[in-house]
Amino acid sequence: MVPEPSAEVEEAPAPLSTGRVEALSDGIIAIAATLLVLELHVPEPGEDVWASLAHQLPSLAAYAVSFLTILIFWVNHHALFHAVARVDRTLLFLNGLLLLGISFVSFPTAALGRALEGGMHDTQAAVLYALTLAATAACFSALWLYLRTHPALLAGPARPRAVAALRRSLVGPVLYLAAGLVALVSAPTSLVLTALVAGYFTMTPRHLRRPAS
Amino acid sequence: MVPEPSAEVEEAPAPLSTGRVEALSDGIIAIAATLLVLELHVPEPGEDVWASLAHQLPSLAAYAVSFLTILIFWVNHHALFHAVARVDRTLLFLNGLLLLGISFVSFPTAALGRALEGGMHDTQAAVLYALTLAATAACFSALWLYLRTHPALLAGPARPRAVAALRRSLVGPVLYLAAGLVALVSAPTSLVLTALVAGYFTMTPRHLRRPAS
Amino acid sequence: MVPEPSAEVEEAPAPLSTGRVEALSDGIIAIAATLLVLELHVPEPGEDVWASLAHQLPSLAAYAVSFLTILIFWVNHHALFHAVARVDRTLLFLNGLLLLGISFVSFPTAALGRALEGGMHDTQAAVLYALTLAATAACFSALWLYLRTHPALLAGPARPRAVAALRRSLVGPVLYLAAGLVALVSAPTSLVLTALVAGYFTMTPRHLRRPAS
Amino acid sequence: MVPEPSAEVEEAPAPLSTGRVEALSDGIIAIAATLLVLELHVPEPGEDVWASLAHQLPSLAAYAVSFLTILIFWVNHHALFHAVARVDRTLLFLNGLLLLGISFVSFPTAALGRALEGGMHDTQAAVLYALTLAATAACFSALWLYLRTHPALLAGPARPRAVAALRRSLVGPVLYLAAGLVALVSAPTSLVLTALVAGYFTMTPRHLRRPAS
Repeated sequence: MVPEPSAEVEEAPAPLSTGRVEALSDGIIAIAATLLVLELHVPEPGEDVWASLAHQLPSLAAYAVSFLTILIFWVNHHALFHAVARVDRTLLFLNGLLLLGISFVSFPTAALGRALEGGMHDTQAAVLYALTLAATAACFSALWLYLRTHPALLAGPARPRAVAALRRSLVGPVLYLAAGLVALVSAPTSLVLTALVAGYFTMTPRHLRRPAS
Repeated sequence: MVPEPSAEVEEAPAPLSTGRVEALSDGIIAIAATLLVLELHVPEPGEDVWASLAHQLPSLAAYAVSFLTILIFWVNHHALFHAVARVDRTLLFLNGLLLLGISFVSFPTAALGRALEGGMHDTQAAVLYALTLAATAACFSALWLYLRTHPALLAGPARPRAVAALRRSLVGPVLYLAAGLVALVSAPTSLVLTALVAGYFTMTPRHLRRPAS
Repeated sequence: MVPEPSAEVEEAPAPLSTGRVEALSDGIIAIAATLLVLELHVPEPGEDVWASLAHQLPSLAAYAVSFLTILIFWVNHHALFHAVARVDRTLLFLNGLLLLGISFVSFPTAALGRALEGGMHDTQAAVLYALTLAATAACFSALWLYLRTHPALLAGPARPRAVAALRRSLVGPVLYLAAGLVALVSAPTSLVLTALVAGYFTMTPRHLRRPAS
Repeated sequence: MVPEPSAEVEEAPAPLSTGRVEALSDGIIAIAATLLVLELHVPEPGEDVWASLAHQLPSLAAYAVSFLTILIFWVNHHALFHAVARVDRTLLFLNGLLLLGISFVSFPTAALGRALEGGMHDTQAAVLYALTLAATAACFSALWLYLRTHPALLAGPARPRAVAALRRSLVGPVLYLAAGLVALVSAPTSLVLTALVAGYFTMTPRHLRRPAS
């Protein structure tokens, strides 16, 4: 048995390494994204396949948008936890709420797809969808604010700068709340806006670039 | 191919590293938590979304409580296995029962939510829910007792102290049995009590703190 | 980017490390075990919880037996791959069939539980269940035979002995076929026999023990 | 806390290591393969088990073909990312589309099985199945082309040769489009062709072989 990274700490029963918190979070995020497909309606025997696909186009669109949004949550999660050196109970609790939010996304995604298909209550469903994403994104903001005010949890002298660079974590909830407001006017437009938010976060991942050196 | 940590052991066919046991356990725990959402009822086309959410408020509450409880089981699992250096058949069997219990949680969670919604048999469902959590927590107690009496399975001279610090593993089954007794009087109160147990374990994770040195 | 274990091999595009094959296998095994619970019937609102549990006792028993059997498959998988140093196409294909078998287990498990509940066609379902486990166990036998005859795939001089010690991989298919024969007489007895097979493999994991040194 | 491989990079908030991208991809691929079984119809109480299996033979065949095809996607994914040293936004986006495609495979798989069972609209379903696989394979081609034209993302001087050796990534979409054309004549033949494509990729994994040295 090789000593684990934190094996030198014997006083406390078992310090949770950030690596393990990230691994569990990655697992939950991967499952949440992959389960989305289960909410689609597979054409029954005798059902016209193209007609079924055409009918559930809104569900397919919501599925794709949620899948890519969850992948972006994953990128953000990694960017945030990369700077973390130690985990305390507040961090763990906020991360738990974040994972609860991500695991819940399939519910409003399916509700939105079905409401758009049925042409009824789609405003309600789009608002629920936007609020879920806003609440999940707010967990990122809360994590970010907590790390900003607790630099002792960070590793390395340059990490506070790294965390500061993630201040766009504050933008997410605002954008999703805006999508919720748009939903009051048009549910499909709100879904398009959510897709654009995913595009925005995809197009600006400064943290993916490596310095030349 | 790099030698694995236990590659020096050639006599036995393949000693199971605790790292691998933990990885499989993490996987099962992550999936069990994420599958919970599948038991919720997504509003059908034409169904009022807010009315649907309001109606299944008990299911949503049970979902959130179970999700956070499973995350706490994960923290406890890590705290316990952190001190383990080698795995024997009894340990593996007790861990298997523990994982069986965790993977089963979604069943009584969904049953409790539906019974509270229907307003019938909710005492039965709340007792089943509490007994499931008590049995799962009892697996932790059994693992803890087994490690206490088999220090040869532990790594490092300080580990017995680390295990001793986890004696609150004995508290879990008692608390969940108490929730089961409360369920005989009021099922919703029992669910609230379970949420408080999750809060109790979240608020006292001594093992998350790192020593100053 | 740290060099990966196999980074020194530049001629081939990308040698698959056994570690990655094991990681994917672990993932599929963990998911297959955890999905089993989805086949149980959650009591509907208004349904008597204890009556529902009593009615689906066969399904609950099949669920527990399959869960523990899959965990034992996982232990065997690790024991076998621990000795492997390189993966070739035959090994990968046999492992793929093994994972296909494990991922399929939930189907005959649910069929057996329902057939025992309904009291009809339970012999058919028990035979299907036993044949599925026998075919999956036969993949282990095939993997074992292949490694026996291809020592170049093994790592270290002592590994052939390690593989030889796993010759009980040949016992699995025989035991499950026996369970299939018993099913022709009594389906419940066949399920009990499968549980005993799980117990047999749990009680004799020589490979879990570490030498004293 | 041990420093992570990329810990030396402090200017950017959090460079995504290819190892983490691969780990998340592995998770999604493992789940997508394992979820396939959920689309099969478990015989109900009182239903003849052999008759049910015989009836859904097309679904069982589609399930097995898709399972093995996803495993081959996994092998290809590893072969491609093995050569990657750094991840940029385009690579991440193309990988996200690839994972979206893989996670979607269970939908056309189930549709094809049911359409073949029902004997109606099976051409539509087989075309959808082939197009889904072709689109997913095209994501591999796009990833490959992007890496070919961006050698700065590769690690080591020999890696461009390694990537060049993966040029058969261009073959996948062509083969699946051919399966789609065949589907216009015979849906079952198209499924057989897809199985043969899986066989083709299994039989030629040059990248699995290690050099003698």
